[in-house]
Amino acid sequence: MSLHSDTDFQKKIQPIREEIDSIDGQILDLLARRNQQVEKVVALKKEYHMPVFHPAREADLISGLREQAEQCGVAPDFIEELYRLILKNSRAGQARQVGFQASRPGGRVLIVGGNGQMGQLFFRLFRQSGYQVDILEHDNWQEAEVLCKDLDLALICVPMEDTCRIIEQLTPFLSENTVLADLTSIKETPMASMLKCHKGPVAGFHPLFGPDCETLDRQLISVTPGRFPEQWAWLGEQMELWGAVLVEAEAREHDRIMEFVQALRHFATFCFGKFLHKKQVSIEKSLQFSSPIYRLELIMVGRLFAQSPDLYAHIIFASPERVALLKEFISTMNSHLELLDSYNIEDFIRQFNEVSQWFGSFGEQAMRESSFLINKLTEQF
Amino acid sequence: MSLHSDTDFQKKIQPIREEIDSIDGQILDLLARRNQQVEKVVALKKEYHMPVFHPAREADLISGLREQAEQCGVAPDFIEELYRLILKNSRAGQARQVGFQASRPGGRVLIVGGNGQMGQLFFRLFRQSGYQVDILEHDNWQEAEVLCKDLDLALICVPMEDTCRIIEQLTPFLSENTVLADLTSIKETPMASMLKCHKGPVAGFHPLFGPDCETLDRQLISVTPGRFPEQWAWLGEQMELWGAVLVEAEAREHDRIMEFVQALRHFATFCFGKFLHKKQVSIEKSLQFSSPIYRLELIMVGRLFAQSPDLYAHIIFASPERVALLKEFISTMNSHLELLDSYNIEDFIRQFNEVSQWFGSFGEQAMRESSFLINKLTEQF
Repeated sequence: MSLHSDTDFQKKIQPIREEIDSIDGQILDLLARRNQQVEKVVALKKEYHMPVFHPAREADLISGLREQAEQCGVAPDFIEELYRLILKNSRAGQARQVGFQASRPGGRVLIVGGNGQMGQLFFRLFRQSGYQVDILEHDNWQEAEVLCKDLDLALICVPMEDTCRIIEQLTPFLSENTVLADLTSIKETPMASMLKCHKGPVAGFHPLFGPDCETLDRQLISVTPGRFPEQWAWLGEQMELWGAVLVEAEAREHDRIMEFVQALRHFATFCFGKFLHKKQVSIEKSLQFSSPIYRLELIMVGRLFAQSPDLYAHIIFASPERVALLKEFISTMNSHLELLDSYNIEDFIRQFNEVSQWFGSFGEQAMRESSFLINKLTEQF
Repeated sequence: MSLHSDTDFQKKIQPIREEIDSIDGQILDLLARRNQQVEKVVALKKEYHMPVFHPAREADLISGLREQAEQCGVAPDFIEELYRLILKNSRAGQARQVGFQASRPGGRVLIVGGNGQMGQLFFRLFRQSGYQVDILEHDNWQEAEVLCKDLDLALICVPMEDTCRIIEQLTPFLSENTVLADLTSIKETPMASMLKCHKGPVAGFHPLFGPDCETLDRQLISVTPGRFPEQWAWLGEQMELWGAVLVEAEAREHDRIMEFVQALRHFATFCFGKFLHKKQVSIEKSLQFSSPIYRLELIMVGRLFAQSPDLYAHIIFASPERVALLKEFISTMNSHLELLDSYNIEDFIRQFNEVSQWFGSFGEQAMRESSFLINKLTEQF
């Protein structure tokens, strides 16, 4: 391109760019004004004790905007995605604003193991909601008796392998009115231990998310009822006030589900990572040639190995049932050796179809959700 | 709540909601105006033959908006995410607008297997760019000789297992000036076959994405040079004009990488799905209690089984080297049996740390990218 036409181009494009920048500035102003209005709504809702999140209002708003978008020639899907982001941001702001709502105002809470990551998260949440919160750790164990006086809740957030020992050491200090609850990711042994050692109300919780999330908005927490549910109901309500969604399961059922949801999946990922290491596969080269799917799989492997080996060790070796399941998994893998040896493509296809049919309509859902994520991954990184 | 205070609440919230709706209407108008300005920019760029995507301009724009956001009390991360979405939408619009740009204007292209999904995608792209495009399929094979006359490109998009046979049947009709290229996901055998059967320019491509993507924006395509690269350079340029990013690899190197990126990963996923089926795990119950991570893993399994078993069969059984690798994978799994049998947590941790260290800085990247996706999954579904 000649120098002349370059200058020409710059001269012509400059005013359009300035116009775009001015539009962006106006959009930003409107978003700030929108936040202010949302804050007013939240204040009103607090005053009138109305729930903050209003799914029907969100759905209405998005349908209305999709229609308007169509009329002014903007892609409705794009507007929906944009507004889901705006509404999420506004929910997070609302959660911070109403974070002080308490189902048991001024209640006294002791977080046992409060310096761990999950303990810190719940410490922060309880404090934001106006509870009196203390932490019990190795270094202040001598204060345990004092800290357990007039307690509404003792919440056990210690590593899985320490849970039962800590429960035994703590419970002599608890009064019968205190709710005893834990956040352990297995439930059978801790529940049995809590019910045995404590005569008062007991409940088990398992947060189905990592401690690095900013809010509990739409996060799942599994609840296992222990004893006197009416006495710990406020605790479940408190988690719901923080935005969490509670799902109930008996201890045994919970642990059976987690054998697959946690142990098997993590073990399979561990084995995959081990094999990449054994074969000295170049991660850099792989990523360079990765389809979005493989990139997604590889970051899930990388994620596991970026975290604490102790955590995964104790998830995998949590119980003899788990170890037996993992051994069965390996022996099932061996049954595929023959398939490979015989190059039996027909049999592979038959087995594949059997599993497909069993998955049923989940397949469609999986395609839809994974395509969404793959697009996110392609556009972001 | 009393009826009185409910009416009171409605009366107070109504004007705020109307204000929010009005703000949303204004944002929408601004987005439509923004699109119009972007169209002007694209028209100018076309006129002056400037590249459409301008990473530096995007980065500038986002930094500027982050600063402005901070000043008016809007979270900068939120604005960045919002604008990445707006810019992506605008890139897609630009791609549609400039979709007609051609690196070999008016060229004649034959898509062999053009009724398959990937064939359809490239048929559409070439046609949008003003090429004369024909399709060769089973049902019009008798026209092959006619369709191959004065051809600039014959692009093979047939299933992997048919590629070599089709190349042998097609090449007698090709002139020495015609570029012969394929889209097969393995490269050694198709490249050898193309080089043997055709005396003219040859290149192998492997699109590292599925045929369901709307545009090629930022999608990877692997290129394997065959013969006379200067004669097929226009084809690579055309893919870049569509927004694709080309990565080069020799046939052997490509296939070695794909043993891991495709075969191993898909095989491991197949085995996992088979085991869920064998154990009759309730997908519904699992999803109900799924951490976002497991949900992500489960939809990747569901995705595989929602697709064509033939495709995966031929990816897995593509070559004896692949089958040998998968067998080695299974035998490595067996080596973990002892670990499980002995409950050797220390050894597990030692092995875990070994892999962690080997992954190195990829771990951080994996945590960051997967956290981003997990948040997306939580907020969207």
